[in-house]
Amino acid sequence: MVQKLIEEITKKNAPVVAGLDPMLSYVPEHIQKKAFDESGETLEGAAEAIWQFNKGIIDAIYDLVPAVKPQIAMYEQFGVPGVAVFQKTVDYCKEKGLVVIGDVKRGDIGSTSAAYAAGHLGKVQVGNSICSAFDEDFITVNPYLGSDGINPFLDICNKEDKGIFILVKTSNPSSGEFQDKVFEGKPLYGLVAEKVAEWGAQCMDGSYSNVGCVIGATYPGMGKVLRKMLPHNYILVPGYGAQGGTAKDLKPYFNEDGLGAIINSSRGIIAAYKQEKYQKFGGQGYADASRQAVIDMIEDINSIF
Amino acid sequence: MVQKLIEEITKKNAPVVAGLDPMLSYVPEHIQKKAFDESGETLEGAAEAIWQFNKGIIDAIYDLVPAVKPQIAMYEQFGVPGVAVFQKTVDYCKEKGLVVIGDVKRGDIGSTSAAYAAGHLGKVQVGNSICSAFDEDFITVNPYLGSDGINPFLDICNKEDKGIFILVKTSNPSSGEFQDKVFEGKPLYGLVAEKVAEWGAQCMDGSYSNVGCVIGATYPGMGKVLRKMLPHNYILVPGYGAQGGTAKDLKPYFNEDGLGAIINSSRGIIAAYKQEKYQKFGGQGYADASRQAVIDMIEDINSIF
Repeated sequence: MVQKLIEEITKKNAPVVAGLDPMLSYVPEHIQKKAFDESGETLEGAAEAIWQFNKGIIDAIYDLVPAVKPQIAMYEQFGVPGVAVFQKTVDYCKEKGLVVIGDVKRGDIGSTSAAYAAGHLGKVQVGNSICSAFDEDFITVNPYLGSDGINPFLDICNKEDKGIFILVKTSNPSSGEFQDKVFEGKPLYGLVAEKVAEWGAQCMDGSYSNVGCVIGATYPGMGKVLRKMLPHNYILVPGYGAQGGTAKDLKPYFNEDGLGAIINSSRGIIAAYKQEKYQKFGGQGYADASRQAVIDMIEDINSIF
Repeated sequence: MVQKLIEEITKKNAPVVAGLDPMLSYVPEHIQKKAFDESGETLEGAAEAIWQFNKGIIDAIYDLVPAVKPQIAMYEQFGVPGVAVFQKTVDYCKEKGLVVIGDVKRGDIGSTSAAYAAGHLGKVQVGNSICSAFDEDFITVNPYLGSDGINPFLDICNKEDKGIFILVKTSNPSSGEFQDKVFEGKPLYGLVAEKVAEWGAQCMDGSYSNVGCVIGATYPGMGKVLRKMLPHNYILVPGYGAQGGTAKDLKPYFNEDGLGAIINSSRGIIAAYKQEKYQKFGGQGYADASRQAVIDMIEDINSIF
């Protein structure tokens, strides 16, 4: 699967992923109104508003970006109707040829991780039938429970040609509280990175692994060290834009071949029309604003090469 | 919310939680057949089979146990229909007066944790309406991202009188890979426990906190140390029964007042009819087998006092 991601990145010349993390407050008034008129001010109405919002953005940017990263929490907050729109969004993005990274940060003990792996990346057996559920291309995974929580994901990566990104060093201000603590000379994120290298070696797909990692753009020094530790693992980099990461911070996340990292922006793309820079587009033109924000982001990122 | 849990535990004299983690292979033939005949060998059929299975068990045990712990992965693997049955299970258990602990192990950066907190424990605003989504009483939370991933849950615990159990030391064999690493004389799980005490102090509900923790029954030595570190935090203890924890291992998880811990069994209860001990009940009597397993478990646990 990482080869498909690389192919799309190369074809579009854009090591960029659009984070589809819709807050209801990002959805322009006219879309909210139409959805609420049809489905009420209910979970269904909220889910419909988010779906229409997403569809507009996807239609406007799918030819520019290789991948999208829907954050399932933003859907799950609207209950079952929200989760149904997560599924609809995944399906629609795949129809448009996009690589879909489900930002689900799952992780549990063995048999439970196996259920998450089946539901998000694999297949489930029902009677004599084989069914797919969410069926993303990649998902993000939390490592706190150790190898037997990760192994079921590795099995599915190999069986179904899918991928995972394991949290190593997250972009948030307090990520250091546990992740930076030094154990026998190594920070926790470094210990996790060592395991990512080991797990990744079991899931190679060409010169890169289907097991990547998450390292926030807000910690470029650590990005540099981890890049060297993990030459074969793709880095999913959140924290560019709204969280404070800038293009010049991103160089160390890439390998010499210009590959090895994909930079996420969520708010910066999907709520672009709310920024002063793009406000001329207005709520009606929110999707065009997102398109322009993607064009600008790609130019900004590519300026570092 | 922890006071409601304590009240139910005391009333039923049972510091026990039934883990509703249904695998399709646990569901007796006759229930699977009926569901597949009605809804096909589809995700819908699987979800319906699980719902009927759950309903039978809940009806058979709700007067004996204070709480249930549905593991969302087991529902999520069947996609949107599975998640709908998770919701239906939560609702039905609450109707029956049970405390519901959603075993979701969520955790993310600030605004995303806020969305999980709203969806699972709180409310969401849609236009001028306030809606509830999954609305469990407690959920489990992963601490890897640090305080700003936890704080949104604390806010909701205080605002809505709900609770969380934070993963400290999990029951699985490889939990030590990261959790046992020692930093300046303290293991990672100890560092997390220190934060749990700190977070918990912000959410007191009587003499216990609405912030509890998860410590596996499979590590009783650590349970003993952590019990002393966390006198005001309820411990949710997985790993009894099928995973190898025995009643005599459990004493150290309780405080002197006989409170402070609640022991989970999943397979041991819901798939009891598959054990030699309860096989006389057969598939048709699976719910009665679960009831007997609950009675036996309560007796076993209470023997330690």
